[in-house]
Amino acid sequence: MTNTRAENPLRDPRDRRLQRIAGPSSLVIFGVTGDLSRKKLLPAVYDLANRGLLPTGFALVGFARRDWEDQDFAQLAHDAIKEYSRTPFREEVWAQLAEGIRFVPGEFDDPEAFEQLRTTIEELDAVRGTNGNHAFYLSVPPKFFAVVCEQLASTGLAASTDDQWRRVVVEKPFGHDLASAQALNATVEQVFPADSVFRIDHYLGKETVQNMLALRFANQLWEPIWNSNYVDHVQITMAEDIGIGGRAGYYDGIGAARDVIQNHLLQLLALTAMEEPVSFSARDLRAEKEKILSAVRLPKDLSASTARGQYSSGWQGGTKVVGYLEEDGIDPASTTETYAAVRLDIDTRRWAGVPFYLRAGKRLGRRVTEIAIVFKRAPHLPFESTATEELGQNALVIRVQPDEGVTIRFGSKVPGTQMEVRDVTMDFGYGHAFTEASPEAYERLILDVLLGEPPLFPRHEEVELSWKILDPIEKYWATLGQPEQYGPGTWGPASADALMAAEGRHWRRP
Amino acid sequence: MTNTRAENPLRDPRDRRLQRIAGPSSLVIFGVTGDLSRKKLLPAVYDLANRGLLPTGFALVGFARRDWEDQDFAQLAHDAIKEYSRTPFREEVWAQLAEGIRFVPGEFDDPEAFEQLRTTIEELDAVRGTNGNHAFYLSVPPKFFAVVCEQLASTGLAASTDDQWRRVVVEKPFGHDLASAQALNATVEQVFPADSVFRIDHYLGKETVQNMLALRFANQLWEPIWNSNYVDHVQITMAEDIGIGGRAGYYDGIGAARDVIQNHLLQLLALTAMEEPVSFSARDLRAEKEKILSAVRLPKDLSASTARGQYSSGWQGGTKVVGYLEEDGIDPASTTETYAAVRLDIDTRRWAGVPFYLRAGKRLGRRVTEIAIVFKRAPHLPFESTATEELGQNALVIRVQPDEGVTIRFGSKVPGTQMEVRDVTMDFGYGHAFTEASPEAYERLILDVLLGEPPLFPRHEEVELSWKILDPIEKYWATLGQPEQYGPGTWGPASADALMAAEGRHWRRP
Repeated sequence: MTNTRAENPLRDPRDRRLQRIAGPSSLVIFGVTGDLSRKKLLPAVYDLANRGLLPTGFALVGFARRDWEDQDFAQLAHDAIKEYSRTPFREEVWAQLAEGIRFVPGEFDDPEAFEQLRTTIEELDAVRGTNGNHAFYLSVPPKFFAVVCEQLASTGLAASTDDQWRRVVVEKPFGHDLASAQALNATVEQVFPADSVFRIDHYLGKETVQNMLALRFANQLWEPIWNSNYVDHVQITMAEDIGIGGRAGYYDGIGAARDVIQNHLLQLLALTAMEEPVSFSARDLRAEKEKILSAVRLPKDLSASTARGQYSSGWQGGTKVVGYLEEDGIDPASTTETYAAVRLDIDTRRWAGVPFYLRAGKRLGRRVTEIAIVFKRAPHLPFESTATEELGQNALVIRVQPDEGVTIRFGSKVPGTQMEVRDVTMDFGYGHAFTEASPEAYERLILDVLLGEPPLFPRHEEVELSWKILDPIEKYWATLGQPEQYGPGTWGPASADALMAAEGRHWRRP
Repeated sequence: MTNTRAENPLRDPRDRRLQRIAGPSSLVIFGVTGDLSRKKLLPAVYDLANRGLLPTGFALVGFARRDWEDQDFAQLAHDAIKEYSRTPFREEVWAQLAEGIRFVPGEFDDPEAFEQLRTTIEELDAVRGTNGNHAFYLSVPPKFFAVVCEQLASTGLAASTDDQWRRVVVEKPFGHDLASAQALNATVEQVFPADSVFRIDHYLGKETVQNMLALRFANQLWEPIWNSNYVDHVQITMAEDIGIGGRAGYYDGIGAARDVIQNHLLQLLALTAMEEPVSFSARDLRAEKEKILSAVRLPKDLSASTARGQYSSGWQGGTKVVGYLEEDGIDPASTTETYAAVRLDIDTRRWAGVPFYLRAGKRLGRRVTEIAIVFKRAPHLPFESTATEELGQNALVIRVQPDEGVTIRFGSKVPGTQMEVRDVTMDFGYGHAFTEASPEAYERLILDVLLGEPPLFPRHEEVELSWKILDPIEKYWATLGQPEQYGPGTWGPASADALMAAEGRHWRRP
C-alpha cells in the first residue's frame, strides 16, 4: 500500500520523524449528523488526512437515521469540513478521503442496519485495505450506548482478533453518578475489552493540557517547588461567558459539577497533582492519575467548602440576557446549578494541607480555563514593610484556553530611587512561541484511537473515582433548595467568594 | 526652609511616600569639566532636582583647573544638563539649581584653592542653608586621590561633627592590584572615616542589579532552586561591541579583568551568590557580599580556567575597525587583554560544585550585560528520547543592560499530535512592565551619598577581597606573551570557548 504522505507539504516534519501515522483502518461514526460530528469529528478526520497522518485507504463510515446514500453523507462531510476544518481545504485530499466514505442508514436497534454495516465494512476491507481494523465512535446519547454495543456484538463487529482490532469510542457524560457510571461501564466493557474502550475527555487532547506533562516533567525548574512546602493552594477554573444555549435538554438536571467538574476539572487536578509516571504509557499515566483521584478528600463541612449558583437575567456585554430559569426548555423551578465551586484536599505527602479549589460556571465575566498554582509568601521578607505593600503571592498559571500559555507572577523592584516591590508577570504564549499550529483536541484523540494509544483516555476506574468525589456533593446539594442567583458577567455567587474569604484567600479574576 | 517638591508633577509619588529626599547639603565635584561629570554627574544632579529629591537650597560646587567664574561653570552645567539629562529640561528647576552653583578654580595641590573652597562652602552654609553638610566627589584620576584628601583635611573640610557631615566619593579604579588598593584605601581613610567613604560602582546603582535583591528575596519561587542541587553553573557576561575608543591612556596596562571583572562582575557574582542578608542595611548587605567574596576559590590550573584575548582588526557591522594594537596611543607590543574569562568556584554549602564563569570583552558581537543561572537537566526524563532531543537546560537570565528584564528558558511541548519538547522562553521586560521610568544609576547613587545610605557602595574590604581573587590571575597572565587575537564582532578568543567545552558546557550567545 502506498500513500501520499511524502508529497504532502502540510505535514509536520516532526510527525514524519516520530512515525505517528495511523495504519490501515476505518472510523465508523454513529450519530454522524449531530453537531459534534459535523463541527469536530469530520473536520478532525480531514485535518489528519491533510497532514498525511491517515493511510491512503482510510475509510469513514457514517451511521444515522437518515434515508441517505453515500453521496449524501459525503456532501454533509464536505460541507462540514469546508466550514470547520483547521487546515486549508485541498481538493486532492478531499477526493482521496471521499473515495473511502460510506453511509449506513438505520436505527440503533435495527439488526438489519448492522448487517448492512457489516457488509460495508467487509467491502472496505476488500477494496480499501482497511484490514479489519475499525473504530466505532458513539456520538450518540448515552442511553443508546448499550444497544449499539449489543448490536455490534451480535453482528460480530465488536470482536478483535490477533491481527484485526475493533475499538469503541464513547463521549461524556459517563453516567450521572457512581452507580450509573458503573452500569454504563459494565455495559460497554461487556462487549469491548477495557483496552478497546476509548473514553473521550476532549480536554485531555488540548495542547496545553498535554503541555502540563512537558512543563512538569521535562524541566528542572518546577518540581522542587511543586509541593506543600511552597504551594499555598491551587485554583482550577473553567469559566464560560455564554449561557446554556440550545443545550437545555442535556443540561437541566445535570449542572456545572456533573458537566465539567467530574471530568475536565478533576482530570486537570489529577495532571497537576500526580507524581511523575514511570512513562507516559497508558498504564503508567493512568495509575498516577488514579492514585491522586483516590487520595482526594472532601472536607467534612460541605456547606462551607462548596458553593453553587444559577445565573439570573441581566445585561452582559451590552446585551440583555435571560436567566437560567427563563431559558427555553428549563423548568422554572429547576435547582440545577450553572456555577459550582468546591474545595478538595489531597491526602498525599506532596499535597497535604494544600487546598485545590475547583470552579466552573456559565455566564461568567470571561471565557477562560486555567490552572493557577499559587505559592506561599516567602517565609521572611528582609524589606521595609512599606516596600512590599503591593506584593502578592507568586503564582504559576497555565492557561488552557483561550490564548494558551503559561504566566508567572512574581515580585520585582519598581523603578525608582527606593526599594519597592510590586507584582509583575512574565509570559509564555503558545501562539507566539511556535510556528507549528496547534492541532485540535479531536485530531489528537482520533489519531490516538486509530493508533491504539490510550494514555489520554480515562479508564473506567478514573471515571468511577471522579464520581465517588462528586456523589456526596450532589447528594448534599439535593437537600438544598434553589441555588443562589448571580448576575451575568459576574464571577459567580457571593457564597463562592465567601468560601474563599473564610480561608483568607480569594478567587483569581483571570 | 521650603522647597518646591509639592508642586513638582514629575515627582514619583512613591518617593514622597517613602521620604527619600536629601536634606540640606552640597555636592562638590573635583574634575568637574571631565566626561563623567558632564555626561553623568551633572545631569543626575539635575534629574534629582527635577524629581524634587533635592532641597531648595542645594548647592553644587565645581572645582577644576580652569580660570573660570561661577557663571562659566553654570554654562557648562546648563549645556551638559540640556544634552544628557534623563528628565525634561524645565527653566524653573534649572533656575533654582543655578542659584546654588559655585566654581572654585585651582590645582589639586594648591592650598590657596582649597582655602577658597572653604570660603565658598562657608558662604553656602550661610546663604543656601547647606548646614555644613558637604559631599566631595573625586572625579579625578586616582593619583590625585591622596593630595585632594590631604588638602581637604588640612583645610578642615574633611571633618564631620555630630550635626554636620562630610563625605567623600571615589570612582574606580580602586587600585590596580591588592597592594595598591590597600594603599589607596589607607590614604582615603586616613582622612575620612570608613563610613564617610563612598566608592562608586555604578553597576550597583542600576535598577536590574538592585532588582536582584527583590527577585531573590521578595519571592518564594526562586530560593528553593537557588543552590547547587539545581544549578549547574552561572554565567556572568559583560560584553561591549565597541573598542577602547579614546580611553587608550587609561585602558592599556589595565585590561578587561581589572577594568570590569574586579569590580562590576565580582559585585554581580556576590549579589547572585550571597545568602539573604538580615536587612538591606549597609552593614548586613556588605557582610553577605564579603562572605561570598572571601569564599571564592580560584581553580588550581589557571591555564585551563582562564582565557584572554585581544581584538584584531576587521569588519564589524559593515565598518572596518582597527585592532587593539593599532589603536591610537596603544603600544604595538601591548599584552593588555581586551577580553577576559575566568572560572571561579565558591566554597559554600550552597554553591560547592557550581562553577561561576565570568567574562568581559570589547568588540564582541553585541552589547549586553547579563547574569544567567543555568540549571541542571531534570534527573530523569520520562519521555521517549526523540521527544527531548531539542531540549536544553532550564535557565533564568537577568538582563542588566540593555533591554533590562528577566527571562526564563524552559521546555514546552511542541504543538502537534506527538509529545515533543523544545525550549521556549518567557520574558519580563522592565520597560514594558512599569510606567515608572528607571532612574540613572548615578541619580540613585548621588542621592544615596547625600542621604548617607551606603548599602550600594562597596567598602574597602570588598575591594580588597576582589583584588585577592584577581591578583593571582593577573600574575599568571603576566608570565604569558601576547593574548590570543579574536575578530571584531565575534564572541572572543577560541581559548575561551575551549575553556567551556572542556567542562562540557558552552557560553551563551546572548
